[in-house]
Amino acid sequence: MSQLVKINEDRLWSRLYQVGAIGADPRGGVSRFAWEPAYRDAVKLLINWIEKEGIEWRIDSVGNVFARIEGDGKKEPVVLSGSHFDTVPQGGFFDGLAGVMGALEALVAIKESGIPHKRPIEMVAFINEEASQFLGGTFGSKAMCGMLPSDYAYQNRHRQTGQLLCDAMREYGMGVDPDNIEKSKINAKEYYAFIEMHIEQGRYLLDKDIPLSVVEAVAGIKQFYITIKGEAAHAGGMAMKDRHDAMAAAASIATEVERLAYTISPEARGTVGYIESYPGEHNIIAEKCIMPVDFREADYEKWKEMYDQLMNYTEQECKKRGLMWSVNYTCNLEPAPCNKEVQILMDSIAKELKISHNKMISFPAHDAMNMSRIMPMGMIFIRSSNGGVSHCPEEFTTKEDLVRGTSLLANTLLRMASEDILL
Amino acid sequence: MSQLVKINEDRLWSRLYQVGAIGADPRGGVSRFAWEPAYRDAVKLLINWIEKEGIEWRIDSVGNVFARIEGDGKKEPVVLSGSHFDTVPQGGFFDGLAGVMGALEALVAIKESGIPHKRPIEMVAFINEEASQFLGGTFGSKAMCGMLPSDYAYQNRHRQTGQLLCDAMREYGMGVDPDNIEKSKINAKEYYAFIEMHIEQGRYLLDKDIPLSVVEAVAGIKQFYITIKGEAAHAGGMAMKDRHDAMAAAASIATEVERLAYTISPEARGTVGYIESYPGEHNIIAEKCIMPVDFREADYEKWKEMYDQLMNYTEQECKKRGLMWSVNYTCNLEPAPCNKEVQILMDSIAKELKISHNKMISFPAHDAMNMSRIMPMGMIFIRSSNGGVSHCPEEFTTKEDLVRGTSLLANTLLRMASEDILL
Repeated sequence: MSQLVKINEDRLWSRLYQVGAIGADPRGGVSRFAWEPAYRDAVKLLINWIEKEGIEWRIDSVGNVFARIEGDGKKEPVVLSGSHFDTVPQGGFFDGLAGVMGALEALVAIKESGIPHKRPIEMVAFINEEASQFLGGTFGSKAMCGMLPSDYAYQNRHRQTGQLLCDAMREYGMGVDPDNIEKSKINAKEYYAFIEMHIEQGRYLLDKDIPLSVVEAVAGIKQFYITIKGEAAHAGGMAMKDRHDAMAAAASIATEVERLAYTISPEARGTVGYIESYPGEHNIIAEKCIMPVDFREADYEKWKEMYDQLMNYTEQECKKRGLMWSVNYTCNLEPAPCNKEVQILMDSIAKELKISHNKMISFPAHDAMNMSRIMPMGMIFIRSSNGGVSHCPEEFTTKEDLVRGTSLLANTLLRMASEDILL
Repeated sequence: MSQLVKINEDRLWSRLYQVGAIGADPRGGVSRFAWEPAYRDAVKLLINWIEKEGIEWRIDSVGNVFARIEGDGKKEPVVLSGSHFDTVPQGGFFDGLAGVMGALEALVAIKESGIPHKRPIEMVAFINEEASQFLGGTFGSKAMCGMLPSDYAYQNRHRQTGQLLCDAMREYGMGVDPDNIEKSKINAKEYYAFIEMHIEQGRYLLDKDIPLSVVEAVAGIKQFYITIKGEAAHAGGMAMKDRHDAMAAAASIATEVERLAYTISPEARGTVGYIESYPGEHNIIAEKCIMPVDFREADYEKWKEMYDQLMNYTEQECKKRGLMWSVNYTCNLEPAPCNKEVQILMDSIAKELKISHNKMISFPAHDAMNMSRIMPMGMIFIRSSNGGVSHCPEEFTTKEDLVRGTSLLANTLLRMASEDILL
C-alpha cells in the first residue's frame, strides 16, 4: 500500500470562502469576471497563499495562474490539476473554485506530508471559462492547448461595453500580454496528465445519495442556431397549402430534437430553449424563426449522428413548406472520454479512502475537455447540494463532500506523480 | 326584369380618397382610430356629404353613423349596409372604408334614380371594428346587436395611455354617451337584412383573376392562449426522462394545430404565430411557455371539433411530461353563414351586370358576423390588388373593382328593398 496524504479540511474550507467572496455582487451571489479588478484581487490573494506555503507560482500570457511543487525525478512530466477561477453573473462559491482550491490544498498537503514523488505537480486556475463578459467559453484552457488564433484579443469585445479584449488585458496587468497569446500554449510532452475536480451542477448524485463520482467522459456538445425564412401572411386570409410558415417548421424541428435525444442513446440530451418568431403576432403567420439547439452525447458517432439526422429532417421540413434555412454553430465540442487508467486509479483510491462513489458522464462542458485533446484527462465530480442548483447564489456543496473530493484528488495526484499508472 | 341603378363612379372614388386621407400617419399609411380627433373630422366630412345629398343621418350612443333613405311602404323593415370607418395603425384606404363609401354611394344613386322601393335603406359606418387603441374588435356592431355590457366604457382602457373609454367618448362628443351604450342596440324586427361589402384582404381573387366574390360564410374564429408550466433546468445537466420541458410540449402542440387544420376540412386554418418561452435561454430547459392559437373554420361542428381535439392533445402532452396547463380565450366567434336567398340574389344580379364572380368563405372576421346573429346577412368581397396585402399602406383595390362591387351592392340593396326575396 502506498502512503496516503491527509488534507487540512479547515484550511481548504476557509480559503475557498475567503477567495470566493471576492467579487460579491450587490444583487446577490458573486460576479467575478476575468480580467476585472475583483478577479485581480482574487488572484493576488491566491498568490499570497501560494507564496506563504513556499510554493512557486507563475501567470501565463493570458492570465492562467500556476502553482508548482517539484518532484524528485529529473525532467519528469508534470501532473496538472485545476479548474476555473471566474464565475457566471451572480454565481456561487463552488463552480470552478472548488477545483482550484482543491488542487492548491492538494499541493500544500503533499508538500507538507514530505511523501516523495518523482513528478512535479502543478495547480492551474484557468481564466474566463464562463466567458461572462468576453464570449467564447473555456478561454484559458483553449489558450494553453493552442486552440486560439494569435489575434484573438483583437477580435473579441466585451459584450456590454464593447471594450476590446486586448485593452481589458492591458488594464488587468499582472504580466498578461495580449500580443503573445500563443506564449501560453504548453508543451504537451512536458505533462503527464490533467485532473479536474468540479461540482456536479445537477442532482444526480444528490438523488442517488452518493458524495462523489469518477467521471467517465465529458459529453460532446453541439450548440447551433437554425434560422428559417418563410413568408408572413394573415392567419385568416392564407390557406394552409399556400403558407410558408416558419413557426410551423420550427415547432416540427423542435419536436424532432426531443425525439432524437430520446432515441439515439439512453443518456443523450437535446434541448430547444426558445424559438424567436417574427413578426411574432398571434394572427400573423411567422416569416422568420430562429431557434437554438443544444445537443449532448458522450459517444462520438452518436453525437455526430444526432446532428446529421436533424439536418436531414430540417431540410425535408423546409423543402416541403417552401422555406429557406441556414445553421450557425456557436459551440462544437467533441466528446472527451476520461483516461481509463486514471479512472481505475481513482476508483481504487476512493475505495482505500472509503468514499462511496460511482461513475457518471458530465453533460456540462469543462476545461478538462480541451486538456483531454493534448494529454490524458480525468475528472472528479462532487455532489451539489441544495437541489443540485448551480450558476446561482444558492449553489452549495457541503464541507464534507468538498473534503472527500479533495482527499481523492490529492491522493490521485500524489499517486500519479509517484507511479507509472498510464499504459 | 327589374330596373338597374347606376352608380357615379367618380363620386365614389373621389369621396373614398378624400375621407380615407383623414388620419394620415407621418410614418406612412393612415391611422384613423375610433373616438380620436381625426375620426371626428372624417365623420364630419361624411355627414357633410350626406346632408348635401339631402339624406337623413344620425349617430347612435357609441358613435356608429347612419344615413337613411325612406321607402314607399309603411313600417317596412330596413335594408342595412355598411362596414367600419376606423383603420389599423398605418393602415390603408380600403379596409372598411370601401364598404362604407360603397353603401353611401348606393343610397345616393338609388335616391337619384327615383326607382321606387318599399323598404327604407340605411348606411352604417361602424366604429372601432379594428380596436386599434381600445381592445375588443367589432365594437360598433356588437353594441348594435346588444352584445356589450352596459358598463363596458368603464371597464376598458386605451392600450397605450390607459385612458378610460368613457372619458375618450366624452372628449369625442358628437352625441355619444358612454352611460347609455345599450341605447345603440337596434330592434332586429325593424331590419330586413344586412349586407357588407369589404375588400378580400388576401390574394385568392387576385390569383384566380376574378374581381368579386359572393361570400358564403364568415368562418368561425377561436383565438386563445395556452400557458404551459414546467420546470427550468440546465440543458446539459438534466436527463431527458427527468425533464418537465414546457417548450417541448409547446412545439408538439403547435405541430398538432397545423395537423388539425390540414385534416379537419379542406379550408380550415390553424396558426401559432409565436411561442413565448421563459427564461428563454439556449441552454436552459423552458419552465414556462405561452402560445397563441388561431383556429378558423366555416362549419360549426368542425370548428368546435378542432378546438376539442387540440384540448385533448394538450392534456395528453402535458400529462405525459408532468406539466401544468391552462387556456384563456381572447376571441370565440361562431361561424356566420351568409343567408342563402341573399347569395342567390347577388349571384343573379352579378350575372345581369356581367360581373365575373365566384363564391368564397371569409376567414377574417367582420362586423357582418355580429349582424348575422340578429338578421339575415350577406357579404360581397372585392378583389385586393398589390399582392393581396392589407392592414398596411400598400393596401389597394382598383377603381374598376370598387365600382363593380358597389354596382352589385347598390342593385342588391335596391332589389331587397323592393322585392320579398327572403323565404
